[in-house]
Order: sequence, then structure tokens, then C-alpha cells
Amino acid sequence: MKKKINIAIIGLGQVGIYLYNEIINKKKQIELKTGKKIHIAAISAKNINKKRLFKIDKKIFYKKPLEIFKKEKIDILFEVIGQSDGISKKIVEFALKNKINVITPNKALIAKHGDFLSKLAEINKVNLEFEAAVAGGIPILRSIKEGLATNKINKVYGILNGTTNYILTEMENTNQSFDKVLIKAQKLGYAEPGNPKLDLNGFDAFAKVRILSALAFNNKISKSNCIMEGIEKIQLKDIKIASQLNLRIKLLGISQIINNQLFETVHPCLVSKKDYIGNVNGVMNAVIIEGKPIGESILQGEGAGPGPTSSSLLADLLSILRGNIKYPFGISSKKRGSLKPFNMKNYSNSLYIRFEVRDMQGVLSLITNRLAKL
Amino acid sequence: MKKKINIAIIGLGQVGIYLYNEIINKKKQIELKTGKKIHIAAISAKNINKKRLFKIDKKIFYKKPLEIFKKEKIDILFEVIGQSDGISKKIVEFALKNKINVITPNKALIAKHGDFLSKLAEINKVNLEFEAAVAGGIPILRSIKEGLATNKINKVYGILNGTTNYILTEMENTNQSFDKVLIKAQKLGYAEPGNPKLDLNGFDAFAKVRILSALAFNNKISKSNCIMEGIEKIQLKDIKIASQLNLRIKLLGISQIINNQLFETVHPCLVSKKDYIGNVNGVMNAVIIEGKPIGESILQGEGAGPGPTSSSLLADLLSILRGNIKYPFGISSKKRGSLKPFNMKNYSNSLYIRFEVRDMQGVLSLITNRLAKL
Repeated sequence: MKKKINIAIIGLGQVGIYLYNEIINKKKQIELKTGKKIHIAAISAKNINKKRLFKIDKKIFYKKPLEIFKKEKIDILFEVIGQSDGISKKIVEFALKNKINVITPNKALIAKHGDFLSKLAEINKVNLEFEAAVAGGIPILRSIKEGLATNKINKVYGILNGTTNYILTEMENTNQSFDKVLIKAQKLGYAEPGNPKLDLNGFDAFAKVRILSALAFNNKISKSNCIMEGIEKIQLKDIKIASQLNLRIKLLGISQIINNQLFETVHPCLVSKKDYIGNVNGVMNAVIIEGKPIGESILQGEGAGPGPTSSSLLADLLSILRGNIKYPFGISSKKRGSLKPFNMKNYSNSLYIRFEVRDMQGVLSLITNRLAKL
Repeated sequence: MKKKINIAIIGLGQVGIYLYNEIINKKKQIELKTGKKIHIAAISAKNINKKRLFKIDKKIFYKKPLEIFKKEKIDILFEVIGQSDGISKKIVEFALKNKINVITPNKALIAKHGDFLSKLAEINKVNLEFEAAVAGGIPILRSIKEGLATNKINKVYGILNGTTNYILTEMENTNQSFDKVLIKAQKLGYAEPGNPKLDLNGFDAFAKVRILSALAFNNKISKSNCIMEGIEKIQLKDIKIASQLNLRIKLLGISQIINNQLFETVHPCLVSKKDYIGNVNGVMNAVIIEGKPIGESILQGEGAGPGPTSSSLLADLLSILRGNIKYPFGISSKKRGSLKPFNMKNYSNSLYIRFEVRDMQGVLSLITNRLAKL
């Protein structure tokens, strides 16, 4: 790799602009650690004049991201738009085909097209890095790919979405309704102002589960859903009832091998207030890995927000600048297997059911009667 | 790097023999992940006939480790003897000078000679890796060097010694004395059978603190002690009194920048039973990193035992096999600074003092009187 490296950042939302500013501020530190001089050669977003947290250099601004490649020789591209398809996929695909390294926090893109894109990266001998796609600032993908590389992992699970964890914590702490806390989360930048749906319905956490499975079990990204349920239907009442039982509601993402089948799920769980996972609150994420010979390992950190996300994006940048070409999923695409999805017919679990009924004689008998007929 | 890699393991104690067996069992997996065929070409220990958990190949056994290099071309050497000087240093030095990569879990060696040895590795363009030296199976050094590479870290602290944490936990849970629990720990292989002193007096944790500081703050390994105190003087009484106050005693290692000075310490601390760190029990280690923009990050895992240690040793092996030459301390030796040690005259903290006195009138007044004169 040559000494002067040209960088492009596509997408200047909350994460993109923070990253832009971090790269400018940390140029010297990055040169110290890698020996490379980095230079932001191009930036792109929909609107050049949008109000942003940091000032941008308008001379390097492109309205159409694909125009960049006609004018500049880019070495490393950050895709920070965040679509699962559309322009995000187009740009990443174009970059990899043209031997440009790609770094992205885009879990939707990787969960959907990660297999295809990693193959492209391998063929073109460039890197596709996505540490920031799972659990924000926690170096969880690196830990699975490198730090725990030879362990036999059986289960990876945890709190993978900072937005929903913040909402659940805040509802408990302030006694406010889901809707009110959601508005607060949006104001604080923890939830998307326009469409927070993908966080709330479990989709975002599920995308992360898929990526974790692929890395932990060396398999291709699975296409089948087991259970995906979000927190939209959780009311303050439920949180209070749980609390009386010394429990908390947490949205857990779980990936596990059961009888050689892949069980992947995201749903709200009742966990003990005494347990570790019951005390991971606010925007904190936590990932728990069970493996051999490592035993149980925990990684916890801030899972949302431009700061932690940029921390992981820069970790990927340094990894590339240090000159390593690595398989995006730890092993060659050819060698990644396919795990059978778990047969949901064999699935059984405990459930919490809340009934709202009129206070009259025989109501419990009526309910149990109905349930018996299910 | 060529495709067939010759490995030597020096030291076949609990960790060495476990590692030997793991490497043999995971040859195929390692080839899958790195494309390299590894081969254990030589092993060495004091006694060929000692009873060991796994059978060794006596044809590759050497009584004198330095003899190996006369007969075999070694690419990667594991030093698993564990002395801070003597034969450990001699072998590592010889290997690095002869362009042989070195992997070691030897915190005493690295804390004492890490600066010198990392320079040797850099000059000879080979790797010196020591992930297993700190916090067993937790990929903490990698996380600081890579996953959190551009963060400005202000503080690293945690439970860094599994032996002492096991003893403190077990004393609380079983109401047994320090001495009895120590014997149990030795039987379970958590404490050295011969000389457990270096674990108990805080020396082991302090060596890890020194290594963490060097990585977190990009400075040379400091030579000055702030406070180093172990758990030998803690009695069951103290644990019970703490428990009545809803506290637990934990041996914490702390490395922190205070007024641009380096504050490094290991001593028993009273922590709340409600706090995260108060609930890291048994042989578990935990490291907490405070940095910007990452915020607070936690890594927890088994900190002692041959399994977790081998997990980190193999992570280092894979890192080398993947073909990266890296600075042992994340940046070039030339660029590592020196931090002023903290001026202990400016140090103040709360203390727990237990007095055993005769139950007689005026005893409290006598004590406070004496204390006033200190």
C-alpha cells in the first residue's frame, strides 16, 4: 500500500459528519500508528447546505457519489448512508469491483448482501470491514474473528440495540409511556427521527444476530427467521409488573446452535434484576459469548451514537492502513458452510401473558378454559 | 511467509501441555483460517517423564531449549516457562535476534523487559505477541491496540488476577479462612502449588497493570510503584464486615492518567455489591476502559486456567500466520513516550481500618486520640 491514502465518505448524517471530523482531528495519530498519511478526497450527501454539527469542505463535496470515482483515485471508501439496497449497495459494489476498500456500519446491507459483497472483496483482493455494524463501539466482530479465533462457539447473545434498551430503561426509571419516551429518544439522537420502526420492531437487532451467527459459526448468512419481535407492544404496565416480580424486560438477540441447527431470534425477554444482563441499562449494549475453551466472555459498551460508531469505523480504517487483507467473515467464502435452520416445531418456551379482564366471579376459570382449548 | 510453519513450545507445565494438545487438535481449523500448515517441530521442558495431562511426542523433546535452534528451523516460538529473567529471557532474546516470532503469556517477562524485547522484535522484523499475559482469555490487548485504536483512553482498571478473586469469592461463599481456601485454589490449579506469593501479594496484577498502561497510553513501561498491596492480610472477618455494609473486597488493578501523570496501583478495594465490579466473582477477570469517544467499555472473561490462556496464545498464533508484522505495543518503540509517575504526596483516599480492642470504657476515645496524633 502506498503512503498517501485517499478517503471518501458517502453519507453525512449524524455518524458520517462525526467520522469526518474525527478523521481530520486524528490524522497525526493515525500516521503515528500506521505510517500512512490519510487525506479526505471526497464527501457526498444529498444536501450540501444541511445544518451539520461540523463544517464541511465544500470543495470536495459531491452530490452524486458515483461521480467521485470519475475525478478521484479513492483507496478507502466509507459507506455511511445505511440502506439495505439502493444507492448503498450500488456504491459498495462499485467500489469493491474497482479494488477500493470499503468500511461500513450498515448492518442492513451486510445482513442482506454480506455473502455476495464479501465474495466480491475477496476476488478483488480488497477489504470489506463492518465492525461498527454490530454493537456500536464494542470490538465484537474483531474479537470473534481474531481474539477468540480458535474457540468453538456455541452461543452468542445479548442486548444488541441501544435505542430499545434506552426506551425500556427510561420507561422504568421515569414511569413514562412508550410514546413519550420514544419522542425523548428521538430528540437525543438515539432513535431515528423519521422512521424508528427498524429499531423498535427488532429488525435492526436481527440483522446483527445474522452477522454474529455468520462469524461465530463460520456459516453463510441465514435467510430464515425463527422469531422476530420488537418492543412496540410493551406498555408501562408490563414493565411495572415485571419489576414487582424482580424482573426486567430486555430485548435480546440470540444466536445458538441447537442439535446442529441454527437458532436465531430477537424478542423481549424477562430477565432477573440480579443477573448481569438485567443490569445492562440505557444505550449500553452487551454481547455474551459461550465457547470452548474460553468459557463465558462478555463485552459491554455503548451501542449507539456517532462517537462509539466512529470508534469502530476508525478501528477498521487502521486495520486496513496497517496493510492486512483479510477475509470479511474470517474465512474464505468458499469454505463457509450452511447451517440448517432450527425446526420451530420443536421449540418450546415460557411466556408472559397479561390479561385485562373485568373483575367478576369466574373470570379466571373462563380464561383457563379458553386456554385449555388452544 | 512460507506455507509450512515450524513451531516450538518451551515449557510444558499446565499451560504448555494444554497448548500443545490444542495445536495438534486444531491444525486443520488453523489451516482453514490462515492457509498455513503448522507443525510442532520441537518441545522442551525440564523433565521428559513428568506426568502430564496429554501424551507428548518424545522424538521432538529437547531437555535444553537452546539446542533446538541447532537442529531445527523454527518460525514461531512459544515461551511458556514464565520467569521474568533467566532462561525465559534468554530464549526469547535469542529467538527474536534470529528472526523467530515469539508468543508468550509471560507477564513478568514483558512487564520487566517488554521495552527492550519489543525493540528487538522491531529491528528484526518479527512479532512479539503477549495477549495471554493480561486477563487470560479476554482479548484485551488486541482491543486496545486495534478495536479501540484511535480512542483517547484515560483509565483502565479491573480485576486482573483470577487466583485472588477466586479466593476472596470462596471465602465469602464458604465462610472458610484464607489459608483453607488457598489450599483449595492450589488443588484446583488456580494458584501455583509451590509458590503462590506472586499472585497473592499483587505482583502478578501489577505486572498486568504496567502492560495495560503501556498500551493504553502509548508510553514506555513505567518502573516506579505507586501502591502495591495484595490480599494476604485479609481475614474472613474483614469479608464479613464488608458484607454487612453491602460491600465486597476486590483486588483491583488501576492505571490512570491524573494531571498528565501516570497513576498505577494494585490494592484491595471495597466495592458495592450492587456495582458491576462487585459482581465479577470466582476466577473471572474484568477490564473496564474509559475513553473518548467510546465511553465506558467492559470486557469480562475467565482470567486463569490453561483453556482461556491457550485461547489467547492461539489468537496470537493466527495473527502471525495471517502474515501481519505489528508493533508489539501498537506503535513504534521510537514513538513511545514516557509519562511522569504520579506524585504520591498528592494522593488521598478513604481507608477501611479494623481495630481489635478490649471492650472497656474509653477505648474509642483512646483510638481517636492516637489517630489525631498521626
